Amino acid sequence: MAIEAETDAESVEALTASVIGGSGFTGGELLRLLAGHPTIEIAEVTSRSKAGKSVGSVHPPLRGADLRFTEPDDLESVDVLFAATPHGVSMGQIDEFFDIADTVVDLSADFRLETEAQYEEWYDGHDAPEYLEKAEYALPEINRENLAGAELIAGGGCNATATILGLYPLFEHGILEGDEQVVVDVKVGSSEGGAGGGEASSHPERSGVVRPYAPTGHRHEAEIEQFLGTSVSFTCHAVDMIRGASATSHVFPSGPVSKGDLWKAYRGCYEDEPFVRMAAGGSGVYRYPEPKSVAGTNLAEVGFELDPSNKRIVVFSAIDNMMKGSAGQAVHAANIALGLEETAGLEFAGLHPVGAP
Amino acid sequence: MAIEAETDAESVEALTASVIGGSGFTGGELLRLLAGHPTIEIAEVTSRSKAGKSVGSVHPPLRGADLRFTEPDDLESVDVLFAATPHGVSMGQIDEFFDIADTVVDLSADFRLETEAQYEEWYDGHDAPEYLEKAEYALPEINRENLAGAELIAGGGCNATATILGLYPLFEHGILEGDEQVVVDVKVGSSEGGAGGGEASSHPERSGVVRPYAPTGHRHEAEIEQFLGTSVSFTCHAVDMIRGASATSHVFPSGPVSKGDLWKAYRGCYEDEPFVRMAAGGSGVYRYPEPKSVAGTNLAEVGFELDPSNKRIVVFSAIDNMMKGSAGQAVHAANIALGLEETAGLEFAGLHPVGAP
Amino acid sequence: MAIEAETDAESVEALTASVIGGSGFTGGELLRLLAGHPTIEIAEVTSRSKAGKSVGSVHPPLRGADLRFTEPDDLESVDVLFAATPHGVSMGQIDEFFDIADTVVDLSADFRLETEAQYEEWYDGHDAPEYLEKAEYALPEINRENLAGAELIAGGGCNATATILGLYPLFEHGILEGDEQVVVDVKVGSSEGGAGGGEASSHPERSGVVRPYAPTGHRHEAEIEQFLGTSVSFTCHAVDMIRGASATSHVFPSGPVSKGDLWKAYRGCYEDEPFVRMAAGGSGVYRYPEPKSVAGTNLAEVGFELDPSNKRIVVFSAIDNMMKGSAGQAVHAANIALGLEETAGLEFAGLHPVGAP
Amino acid sequence: MAIEAETDAESVEALTASVIGGSGFTGGELLRLLAGHPTIEIAEVTSRSKAGKSVGSVHPPLRGADLRFTEPDDLESVDVLFAATPHGVSMGQIDEFFDIADTVVDLSADFRLETEAQYEEWYDGHDAPEYLEKAEYALPEINRENLAGAELIAGGGCNATATILGLYPLFEHGILEGDEQVVVDVKVGSSEGGAGGGEASSHPERSGVVRPYAPTGHRHEAEIEQFLGTSVSFTCHAVDMIRGASATSHVFPSGPVSKGDLWKAYRGCYEDEPFVRMAAGGSGVYRYPEPKSVAGTNLAEVGFELDPSNKRIVVFSAIDNMMKGSAGQAVHAANIALGLEETAGLEFAGLHPVGAP
Repeated sequence: MAIEAETDAESVEALTASVIGGSGFTGGELLRLLAGHPTIEIAEVTSRSKAGKSVGSVHPPLRGADLRFTEPDDLESVDVLFAATPHGVSMGQIDEFFDIADTVVDLSADFRLETEAQYEEWYDGHDAPEYLEKAEYALPEINRENLAGAELIAGGGCNATATILGLYPLFEHGILEGDEQVVVDVKVGSSEGGAGGGEASSHPERSGVVRPYAPTGHRHEAEIEQFLGTSVSFTCHAVDMIRGASATSHVFPSGPVSKGDLWKAYRGCYEDEPFVRMAAGGSGVYRYPEPKSVAGTNLAEVGFELDPSNKRIVVFSAIDNMMKGSAGQAVHAANIALGLEETAGLEFAGLHPVGAP
Repeated sequence: MAIEAETDAESVEALTASVIGGSGFTGGELLRLLAGHPTIEIAEVTSRSKAGKSVGSVHPPLRGADLRFTEPDDLESVDVLFAATPHGVSMGQIDEFFDIADTVVDLSADFRLETEAQYEEWYDGHDAPEYLEKAEYALPEINRENLAGAELIAGGGCNATATILGLYPLFEHGILEGDEQVVVDVKVGSSEGGAGGGEASSHPERSGVVRPYAPTGHRHEAEIEQFLGTSVSFTCHAVDMIRGASATSHVFPSGPVSKGDLWKAYRGCYEDEPFVRMAAGGSGVYRYPEPKSVAGTNLAEVGFELDPSNKRIVVFSAIDNMMKGSAGQAVHAANIALGLEETAGLEFAGLHPVGAP
Repeated sequence: MAIEAETDAESVEALTASVIGGSGFTGGELLRLLAGHPTIEIAEVTSRSKAGKSVGSVHPPLRGADLRFTEPDDLESVDVLFAATPHGVSMGQIDEFFDIADTVVDLSADFRLETEAQYEEWYDGHDAPEYLEKAEYALPEINRENLAGAELIAGGGCNATATILGLYPLFEHGILEGDEQVVVDVKVGSSEGGAGGGEASSHPERSGVVRPYAPTGHRHEAEIEQFLGTSVSFTCHAVDMIRGASATSHVFPSGPVSKGDLWKAYRGCYEDEPFVRMAAGGSGVYRYPEPKSVAGTNLAEVGFELDPSNKRIVVFSAIDNMMKGSAGQAVHAANIALGLEETAGLEFAGLHPVGAP
Repeated sequence: MAIEAETDAESVEALTASVIGGSGFTGGELLRLLAGHPTIEIAEVTSRSKAGKSVGSVHPPLRGADLRFTEPDDLESVDVLFAATPHGVSMGQIDEFFDIADTVVDLSADFRLETEAQYEEWYDGHDAPEYLEKAEYALPEINRENLAGAELIAGGGCNATATILGLYPLFEHGILEGDEQVVVDVKVGSSEGGAGGGEASSHPERSGVVRPYAPTGHRHEAEIEQFLGTSVSFTCHAVDMIRGASATSHVFPSGPVSKGDLWKAYRGCYEDEPFVRMAAGGSGVYRYPEPKSVAGTNLAEVGFELDPSNKRIVVFSAIDNMMKGSAGQAVHAANIALGLEETAGLEFAGLHPVGAP
């Protein structure tokens, strides 16, 4: 059914894509999106652990697709290569990736930061620092121009994406200047832990939690600082949902700020963005950004509230960590890099009711 | 974004549809599907309680759509009218519905049964029995021919749909003959209770349940008996999911049955069906039908296992009660009735991972 | 079984207690605790809406108890009266309450704040301001001396309780002085919304949420400020659990602070407290405070982490909002007021695994 | 606090108990119960994988208890030894167990069945068949007399326990005779899968499921047949809860049966049982047995409904699989074997609201 590309042979020559590391959650999400993409066709999908098995046996949305996992050797040339491998893998294979494709989209952290020094501070150093300058961060809302024609695209971290999208307009419009206190309290779903499990992510231990993890020193702080230009006090909590990342940012501007100022800043940044939706008040059950409202979609919801008595702005931003926070963002950026329709393959508008989900 | 119909003005004149009772879960699901339908455009959406409000304030997937609820009076003529009203409403307004549209799709129970006597046995009688003969049951897998050109379409019950799709091939291929014991044990999600709530469906009381409801005498038995030709022993349980209905049918054929016989029966009925997927064994996490695997889609998953020591066949069938069990089924049937592409607007293939959902 | 008081008739004369408003969640929790209390016997339980029904039909843990709801009229005299009524009710009936009992424990917000001015700022004024001075806040960890012999006890707010217990040692030991930035980000379960439901707390809408509510201006700020002596920037989120409140407090001390300083402050305040447990690091799945770890118990878990690069202390505190955040705290305070064993009736140590719960 | 035995040194000499395999869920539950037991003291707790760690670091309810896991060697003599090891371990060490204690309670399947032939049919044979005759099944409701003074106690399977307790009165009172069709459809929580995880029990894959597992040929059928004297058609489903097993049994008596007959049978068997509670109809949210209602307790809830049109009785039975289905049952049986108060250590009456849990 819907899982095969509906290419219009008369007008458009389909582009080809392969996915490295297709058995994990992020890889499956990429495959799901590419299978429904109007102008991209899936060539090969690799997975060492699942080689030979049908993709649909691992990812139910792809049942019926004629696709099997292959060993990651001797891949044929494609137009675009997506790498959904664990952190540290792509930096070691990046030359080989470019032998296969002119456009490489890496969903790991390997090319997100700009300098080797940052990798030494936050990760275990870098194997291919010469590529760092070439890489473009996949978030079109802050980097659209550079993504056009980009050869190496670095997908953003899901928590960083939610945070940056929430705070960016405040910096862009001068409401924050960089020396203010910024506290970011994030709540994330279990899909962030990846497929496979382990004791802490087993259903009995993971259900119903509000569990601090990475209470300080989360690596996504590096990305956030890189793009906002200021350090943030960042703390993550695991909560009981599967897809979703929600960032609540508490900021304290030095001067007076009105609701009108805030609307001007956020509308100024986002009103033409196809994948950002404002939610700030109103009536009914859904008044502020919620992961439920965007689950399964490539949308970010962003909203805010003023707290005059504490001279605080509270900013809420919510995404599906698998979509806007990872695979959806990657396809969005690839669409731009390849000159395709920006929203191609990303039109799903979500479900209601839904359980995040 | 994706919520507006992408009609191709050159080739197809869009059909118009209105939805009566659009603020409930089923109505919202219909709107979501119609908004993404390639050849149907939404004209009006009624809701007495929400008149004047934007549809998106109630149903997040429709945020951004330029649609407001209206009072259900003076509706303009449309090509097809969908009624998502509580049981008993449509039978009182059916003449008015046909003043508005030549094709009416009713998602309530009002036209599901064939005779006035059945309504007297299972419901509170019927106000418009003259329409019963005219109505066509919306399940294409068992009634496709009659749906072509149908004027009045009666959506099936969600639990009945799951049960009928699971058992139909056994009767159709003579593995069951109608006098065998059939036990159907159903598990359903909370969206079946509808929007609005109440104590029993409040989150604290409804979470984590395995709660018998309608342990005997469930009205869907009437539909099942009508289409399978035999009475079934039917019991429903509420479980902790939002979307989904899963039927486990335990049947005891009088003669010997092999796995080959079963595959022949099920493939014979379903191999060309766009919305039925077999899942019977295999490896990995997903071996049998599960509501999770079809959540958000119009798919039914059907599978079985043989229990030779008890001379039993266990049949599993799983649907999204909001989709294949209601709004998706309605759009599927309307597509057939109106001569459109059967799968139009129903191509979404689901999510993974997802929480049922 | 366990729901009846096991009084030892030889040595102790049982005290009697009645509960006003016993059909809600908090009232049910009180009844559950009192039914298992070694020296308190339940006399009467009132509920206008459920009068005549057995208490066990509403609260499953009390099935088997010989208790029915009565109309709240003509109550007999008891030793202690617990009021579990909505905010605003007790202040209008407080004189009548003292006609019935010499000791009154009110679980609403009606006597939490110290001055009429505070009620005018945060609530709708106060009907019996003359009682405010008399009322003692129910949190023994900060108010034990005053609770001994108290006649009017005011239960604390659940979110305030979690927050105060987390931050109190920092102020008590001079690590914070009152002019620092304090951000409190709270996550709460659905039982905080009370029994009865409504659209926003229905299972389909409430499951899987990370939903901002009272993003600014939460009334519990008043209590927190009253006891800590400083305003806090407070924001609440509903998450998918039933019982539980988790507060993450981000604070920025003006001077340098070591882990040793923090341990000294927290141990100094809590090492002899029967219902506070430290959780700050260690190995395994459960390293920091979690509502799951204390669900069903009267325990608060408190822990912290240092973030030197942001000069921040992150404090985590977790309680069961129905227990330490409400009914358990009330029984604890009543035990002290009446000169009983502090932990009587509150010994349950929790479950593992458990789903919060 | 509550986790230490409150022995009354004057009147009773405490018995000692050790637990083999204390790091799993069942072992933790045993420890939790024994820690609160009035006349049993924990001596040693073994775990190869966690030796040296504090028991509280694995099981939060035991934080504060002065207990560490030890290697399972050189155990000192105790009054009673509980083995919470995987199936197949106890049968190989049973002689050593009896060197340590005169009373052994084994929670695995190793001594549940009566004959070596059964183990050959359903398991992989048996290493110590000479002990099978000596073992007493731990379910007091059907085996109380034999448990008094028993030396080897075999804990029942959780699903078997729920099923047997539901159906036993029908056989005991002649409503079923053994040749009728019996269909048992079971729903279980994730704690049945044990600690540790794996892909299928990871939170993203396990949440929101209605997943058939062991659709036919479940080993618990052997126990059920052994005690009811008839084969049952048994199918299990994983659903989204942590603790709980719910069995719905559909039976078809050959003769007419009234509600009065059923009440007589169930009351006859259970009215004096401390851990069986009838729930069959009534008003409110909780009308039939539910795992939520008994979560954390040693109670079984049992109820039924008549379906005259299908000549069917539907029996519902619900337990906490960790308690009545495992550790609670074991302590209950040990209490009887050792001549202690039957309900000692098992008085917890549950929580409301609670999420199963």
